[in-house]
Amino acid sequence: MTPAEMIDVAVDEARKGLAEGGIPIGAALFSSDGMLLGSGHNRRVQQGDPSLHAETDAFRAAGRQRDYRSTVMVTTLSPCWYCSGLVRQFNIGALVIGESRTFVGGHDWLADHGVEVNLLDDERCVAMMTDFIAANPELWNEDIGVAE
Amino acid sequence: MTPAEMIDVAVDEARKGLAEGGIPIGAALFSSDGMLLGSGHNRRVQQGDPSLHAETDAFRAAGRQRDYRSTVMVTTLSPCWYCSGLVRQFNIGALVIGESRTFVGGHDWLADHGVEVNLLDDERCVAMMTDFIAANPELWNEDIGVAE
Repeated sequence: MTPAEMIDVAVDEARKGLAEGGIPIGAALFSSDGMLLGSGHNRRVQQGDPSLHAETDAFRAAGRQRDYRSTVMVTTLSPCWYCSGLVRQFNIGALVIGESRTFVGGHDWLADHGVEVNLLDDERCVAMMTDFIAANPELWNEDIGVAE
Repeated sequence: MTPAEMIDVAVDEARKGLAEGGIPIGAALFSSDGMLLGSGHNRRVQQGDPSLHAETDAFRAAGRQRDYRSTVMVTTLSPCWYCSGLVRQFNIGALVIGESRTFVGGHDWLADHGVEVNLLDDERCVAMMTDFIAANPELWNEDIGVAE
């Protein structure tokens, strides 16, 4: 499975989140041979749960795994420090990112710590977040811990 | 409320987790004036959910908050990178840690980024984790992403 195919799964999750009235960020965790282990999307609005960023939702959906070194975390947006910390702690081996134009998290830090990072600059991801942030700046700031 | 009083809440959560057959790590999020916003404990075993570390469970229990700068995250154990990333991303202002003898996470990194860190070296926390790790090394390694 190529990064371009993997990101489609995360984009579908982001669109689901948007359709639910949520923040349009999606993610998926794949095994090295392209098997989908779990996917998810940001659920701050839908479940009133600030701990469910897209990456943590996908990680949760994948259930308990004994070894993440050969897995690939795919996310529509550069992972924030919370989600970057997840990737580092669990030794997730690779990261595919839809875009980092609307937000830059910890992906360079992860690359420095040995994670294989593939930044796609996917126009669909950029457009979804650009539109969402313009329409909902307060919600977006809440989601990334930016106080008023 | 003093750090010693705050850590008691996290220790109680860790004990609850242990009684449930889980990993004995507890946490609590307090406002600056000592109001408990949420508390929780590691639920990997109980709910089969690897995303619920003690700190993320407490953060989740506190619900949506608009500004974390004056809050205090209290945890029985030095926070792993996942939970350290949470503290950094949401600009949680202060961290009270029960102990860092059995595991060292990202608390120095957080201090470097302006978080007020108070490391207590609480004997109850050390004893709980020492005993748990000795009895359940595989489960502990799974929880911190250490592969076999």
